[in-house]
Amino acid sequence: MGAGGVIVTVCLNPAIDVTYRVLELSVGRSHRVLEVHARAGGKGVNVARVLHQLDEPVTVAGLCGGATGAEIAADLQRSGLPAAFTLISGQSRRTVTVVDARDATVFNEPGPPVSAAEWTAFTAAFDEIAKAGRVVVASGSVPPGCPDTAYAELVAIARANGAAVVLDAEGEQLRHALGARPDVAKPNAAEVAHLFGRPVTTRQDARDAAQLLCDSGADAGIVSLGAEGFVAVTPSAVFDVRLPRRIRGNQTGAGDALAGAIARGLARHDPWPELLADAAALSAAAVAVPVAGSVAIDVMAEVRPGVVVQKV
Amino acid sequence: MGAGGVIVTVCLNPAIDVTYRVLELSVGRSHRVLEVHARAGGKGVNVARVLHQLDEPVTVAGLCGGATGAEIAADLQRSGLPAAFTLISGQSRRTVTVVDARDATVFNEPGPPVSAAEWTAFTAAFDEIAKAGRVVVASGSVPPGCPDTAYAELVAIARANGAAVVLDAEGEQLRHALGARPDVAKPNAAEVAHLFGRPVTTRQDARDAAQLLCDSGADAGIVSLGAEGFVAVTPSAVFDVRLPRRIRGNQTGAGDALAGAIARGLARHDPWPELLADAAALSAAAVAVPVAGSVAIDVMAEVRPGVVVQKV
Repeated sequence: MGAGGVIVTVCLNPAIDVTYRVLELSVGRSHRVLEVHARAGGKGVNVARVLHQLDEPVTVAGLCGGATGAEIAADLQRSGLPAAFTLISGQSRRTVTVVDARDATVFNEPGPPVSAAEWTAFTAAFDEIAKAGRVVVASGSVPPGCPDTAYAELVAIARANGAAVVLDAEGEQLRHALGARPDVAKPNAAEVAHLFGRPVTTRQDARDAAQLLCDSGADAGIVSLGAEGFVAVTPSAVFDVRLPRRIRGNQTGAGDALAGAIARGLARHDPWPELLADAAALSAAAVAVPVAGSVAIDVMAEVRPGVVVQKV
Repeated sequence: MGAGGVIVTVCLNPAIDVTYRVLELSVGRSHRVLEVHARAGGKGVNVARVLHQLDEPVTVAGLCGGATGAEIAADLQRSGLPAAFTLISGQSRRTVTVVDARDATVFNEPGPPVSAAEWTAFTAAFDEIAKAGRVVVASGSVPPGCPDTAYAELVAIARANGAAVVLDAEGEQLRHALGARPDVAKPNAAEVAHLFGRPVTTRQDARDAAQLLCDSGADAGIVSLGAEGFVAVTPSAVFDVRLPRRIRGNQTGAGDALAGAIARGLARHDPWPELLADAAALSAAAVAVPVAGSVAIDVMAEVRPGVVVQKV
């Protein structure tokens, strides 16, 4: 294992996430930015941050380039997060979120172009990184130029190296990667609905969708209902998972915390009911914190005993 | 002179100016950025770009720091603009302009903090740079931590080295710097109105304000009326300057082009009427281009013969 983590998160399209606080956002006007916050983000980075906060050894693998890529690498180093990036010639993206007293308005730059040679170099590097990992989390957007089968290739490489895979992807990436048989597929509900062409609103919808994820190749499928908890179809049973109370806050980081908790449970070989209850509590603990990639440890501890995991 | 320019522009608070094109800006929503443009900006940089486009030798002197500072230096190098920056430990700012089909919405980050030692280091460097310059253009905002007398000090240093000074400042910086006797003061009309506590709307208002700039210490005062042209109070005479036609476009870069043209005329020892006519034409040529720091050479050539410079 060496310095590498037991868990490897993949972040193909990392970003510098910038937050601007302004008095009031008004279209067509000029604004003085009162405060600037910037830190490295992207789903794979946020999953790694959560695991790091839980003292789990974790490594971020991905692509980065340009001045923004250098900022990302420097920020991860400051955060104590080991990273193994393949350098690309394009410039990594930034996101800008403008926050005033009422709203958050988000601007997402497009990802940098990735050449075929750069993608090949990354898969070779990932083949080495995966050898040291017990679990790989493959999540988040894929920059332009990567093949539609990017995640499918990474799932195959991870499995060939004996690592379990948690997949949180979308669109064609998700469709192809399911065929590569990830251990757990955990796309967000909107993506599952899009993939299978059917709405996911009720608990029964979520169960059906999770089953379809398994039918498409995943060993287990997890579909979230946000504050209502989630549904897991596993090789041994189908589980309904419910939180003891509604947590107020920011849903954006909940999916990343869920993915991180699943990876942690797989790495420990936890039984499904325990893994799922931990995952629900950690996801709630992420909602309680306004910024993605952080969890409120006290909320996790408080919520955990009340999580209900029910075999269906 | 060496590699340095005949004209030195001061840019104490340079920026990376980023433009995001989006389909439609909607407060509280998430936006895919369709196009990203980024280039070094700030008034001193934009004045230098205009002069460079006219093949005038020019050097940008200023403060920059952090990753954004490195981006600024790299972008100026790509543009072929010699720069002499004093490095500071703070991070230079970015500006983000979000453009959709109807509006431009601007977010200006605050400038980096500048320590007393950094300011002293810059004034020492500027003392050397000014020796090589025939004209200094001191324009734009001043980052926090610099003294209120920052521009006053630079005007004094430039004059002690035999360089003429064009001043385009605001607030306390303007007030103090006028006392250091710049050759030409060319603040924008809103700043002049603020400084003297009286509106500048009519041509007579502009004439009075320009006279007050001279009474406050400037050898010459120029006050612009936007598309209506400008008024210049010089040691020899008072001039009304009018454009032959209204130029449609973006007023933001007009003031920087005006400052650049004045500096160019001073460097050449042009007589006032010729200098002012050139400045009016160049300012119009800047309005014709959507981005600050660029001029439409054909518009300048077309407008120039029709500019009317009238002794009052």
